Amino acid sequence: MKIALDAMGGDYAPAHPVAAAVRALEAFPQISRLVLVGDEDVVKRELARHGAAPCERLHIFHATQVITMTDSAVDAVRRKKDSSLCRAVDLVKEGAVDAVVSAGNTGALVAAATIKLRNLPGVDRAGLACPMPSRSGVWLLLDAGASVDARPDHLLAYGCMGSIYARHILGIPEPRVGLLSVGTEESKGNELTKAAFPLLQKAPIRFIGNVEGHGLFEGAADVVICDGFVGNITLKTAESLAKTTFKWIKEEIQSNPLRMAGALLARGAFQTIKKKTNADEYGGALLLGVNGICVKAHGSSSVHALFNSLRVACESVTRQVNPLIIEALASSSASPS
Amino acid sequence: MKIALDAMGGDYAPAHPVAAAVRALEAFPQISRLVLVGDEDVVKRELARHGAAPCERLHIFHATQVITMTDSAVDAVRRKKDSSLCRAVDLVKEGAVDAVVSAGNTGALVAAATIKLRNLPGVDRAGLACPMPSRSGVWLLLDAGASVDARPDHLLAYGCMGSIYARHILGIPEPRVGLLSVGTEESKGNELTKAAFPLLQKAPIRFIGNVEGHGLFEGAADVVICDGFVGNITLKTAESLAKTTFKWIKEEIQSNPLRMAGALLARGAFQTIKKKTNADEYGGALLLGVNGICVKAHGSSSVHALFNSLRVACESVTRQVNPLIIEALASSSASPS
Repeated sequence: MKIALDAMGGDYAPAHPVAAAVRALEAFPQISRLVLVGDEDVVKRELARHGAAPCERLHIFHATQVITMTDSAVDAVRRKKDSSLCRAVDLVKEGAVDAVVSAGNTGALVAAATIKLRNLPGVDRAGLACPMPSRSGVWLLLDAGASVDARPDHLLAYGCMGSIYARHILGIPEPRVGLLSVGTEESKGNELTKAAFPLLQKAPIRFIGNVEGHGLFEGAADVVICDGFVGNITLKTAESLAKTTFKWIKEEIQSNPLRMAGALLARGAFQTIKKKTNADEYGGALLLGVNGICVKAHGSSSVHALFNSLRVACESVTRQVNPLIIEALASSSASPS
Repeated sequence: MKIALDAMGGDYAPAHPVAAAVRALEAFPQISRLVLVGDEDVVKRELARHGAAPCERLHIFHATQVITMTDSAVDAVRRKKDSSLCRAVDLVKEGAVDAVVSAGNTGALVAAATIKLRNLPGVDRAGLACPMPSRSGVWLLLDAGASVDARPDHLLAYGCMGSIYARHILGIPEPRVGLLSVGTEESKGNELTKAAFPLLQKAPIRFIGNVEGHGLFEGAADVVICDGFVGNITLKTAESLAKTTFKWIKEEIQSNPLRMAGALLARGAFQTIKKKTNADEYGGALLLGVNGICVKAHGSSSVHALFNSLRVACESVTRQVNPLIIEALASSSASPS
């Protein structure tokens, strides 16, 4: 399979994307070609730092512009046609690669994918499906921030798409789909969730009703549906709290030599849970609903996070879910309402 | 001061409210009378378990009904006039007590307070102000779930009210007010936050713009404004993740004797941070915007959480913020728009 990586996207570009590409080529033999998209000289210099150079499996696609994190999304996609992000999506559109990974501007990636690749039939808004940790494994948060204002039918489509992702990519046979709300009773919620609830009940998925913030990390549902505003805030709050908690524990431990000795003995426990709660482990969020495979990595992605995003891209190419999504949405909209 | 406590509200009523009342009477000499509202026989029996009985400082106000967690809020307030929750709010209305604390149904407490006490002049919707931990102290989340669908002017009022709470109750001289959103740039947000942003800019508060989920626990703002749907999900997600992280660490430690020995040496560090991230330590959320002092404790409040909610009620009675809120909202609406 062939994958394009936006070499200029994210807070630590090109260093982190290029380092992740070098690692991924070693780890994933199924990648026949990895295309680094960005300024050729800059990318070459960065590759040289790893003793690497363009070759049969590692190409550079030259792009002169960069979309920054503060650029307005739709504007940037229209104006910066030769940006690394746009060119990387173009490669998917042209069929030159099977998937694209970018840690760049989320809005711009969603806009570029929607404008260039178009949505799948039956999809009005794409949604970012972000894997998150639970006690027993992984659950999916959807939409993690692709579109901030959602309609009830968008949440319905997220439910159907997330269910397919969970089944075919995460390997959960009958994924439980929950609607993120402020109480488990059907009557609890805002205007949006109350209108989406009956739609999800009728959908050909295993809808288990509302789930609360309390249940998320205890595995209350396999797929948790919400609008992109709520999803993005939930995602960032959770990531930040997990990091902050470990930082606070570390500071407390370092304030006392006895505690430091104890922590050394117990460090295996910390490492396991720190890894479990570390967003970098879960890789990128797959943009569900567009006609192509686009993976969004965190703007501040580490090399490890980008490496895992490339893994998510490989899995998504292997287990093509788009045909299944088209089928599910067709049967969902055909069902009596 | 006199405080009413809903003895039948919350998942562990009457046991936890009654135990908290007994503790609070010992700890807070400023409470001249604590009124336990609920079934007299039940409350008396519960008091007897603590070797306590009604006395000059500890009254029982008999109420025959109980509003459950699943009751519809407005309906319950209308139908269950002799419920412990309604009667406790009635006591505030009649001036028999200075404040009320309840761990009961959030919607019902908000409805009872709004219907019986009325909103302050200039306030259209009350908001729950919930104290949360940060690196250096405490910040305020507002609205933590009083009303799920907010308008831009509601967020403006939350900003003004939260600023006054932070200054006069938390003791922060110039509280930084942030608007919870999906990016720090003014252009980032949903329809609601984009419309609220310019209103907050013009308000007589120290508005610092948008804040993201990432910054919350690092002290990005002293007051974080959002609608009650987003606030409730943020609150519950954070509480649950903090608890879950410690549970996971504990399980990992207990899987190995060497780790257990180490954890024993380092336990002071855990205890400090576990306490810091424990919602029970922060007490209840003050319902800002109603003409009276109402404190909402968590439905699943421990005795310690209810004890801290009584502490919040005492602080709120001492530092009356309602006159300051009325003044601030009058000057805010009088400012040129």
